[in-house]
Amino acid sequence: VKLKVAWIGKSKESHFQCLAEEYLKRIGRYAEIEGVALKQEAALLELSRKPSGPRHTLVVLDERGRQLSSQGWAAFLRDCQDRHRSPLLFAIGSANGFSRQTVEAADHVLSFGPMTVAHELARVMLLEQLYRAFTILKGHPYHSGH
Amino acid sequence: VKLKVAWIGKSKESHFQCLAEEYLKRIGRYAEIEGVALKQEAALLELSRKPSGPRHTLVVLDERGRQLSSQGWAAFLRDCQDRHRSPLLFAIGSANGFSRQTVEAADHVLSFGPMTVAHELARVMLLEQLYRAFTILKGHPYHSGH
Repeated sequence: VKLKVAWIGKSKESHFQCLAEEYLKRIGRYAEIEGVALKQEAALLELSRKPSGPRHTLVVLDERGRQLSSQGWAAFLRDCQDRHRSPLLFAIGSANGFSRQTVEAADHVLSFGPMTVAHELARVMLLEQLYRAFTILKGHPYHSGH
Repeated sequence: VKLKVAWIGKSKESHFQCLAEEYLKRIGRYAEIEGVALKQEAALLELSRKPSGPRHTLVVLDERGRQLSSQGWAAFLRDCQDRHRSPLLFAIGSANGFSRQTVEAADHVLSFGPMTVAHELARVMLLEQLYRAFTILKGHPYHSGH
């Protein structure tokens, strides 16, 4: 499975950035993954439907979406792999979240719940959950607390 | 309002620790707050019911708890302040979460949703949410994306 994880806006806080890089590295043991910093939300739809490349399956994180357990995240990744065969593009919005247009254009909308979370923190939460999902699928003991 | 934020187990990852310290510092502008690292869960109940000190209002984070929006977190803090007048003790469990006994002993059980989250990450999520709650109560523009 090929993955891209996109976020809108610059990183201001180096600790969030270091944590994001650490999880990208760990996920890299299981899948081809790339982190992409976008300046504006408009660039996200362009990236997902680039005429020169494959169509991506776009998954946005938004409070209007479905909440999954960690087992649910693992099942979601496995199903995407089985069904779509296209690269997966996960995206975290800017400080203001996503526009309705982007949410409607997405193939899947997932949620971390009703709380508003700093977007740099949401990026780390997404990457940790993706890493956890891969360890569940591969039987690595991370999810059982090690 | 006086706050303690307790977690069980050592920090392994310095970036999580630095972020936790940063939010503790920021919350310190609004309330008297202290971070407490506990070796074991048993120490949590001792800390909350120390005969020598005030009885604390114990709030544990557990997936069996209530999910709140950020506005809900702000209202929760305000209500605790109004009702209990006792210091608040928020706690994040170890990698295995909390025992049923601790959850039953808690005054309030709040949840970040059905996902399992690394406990060091959960600590940062809790502190960010407390900071956001104070900025909402005080009318600071952090919550509106600045």
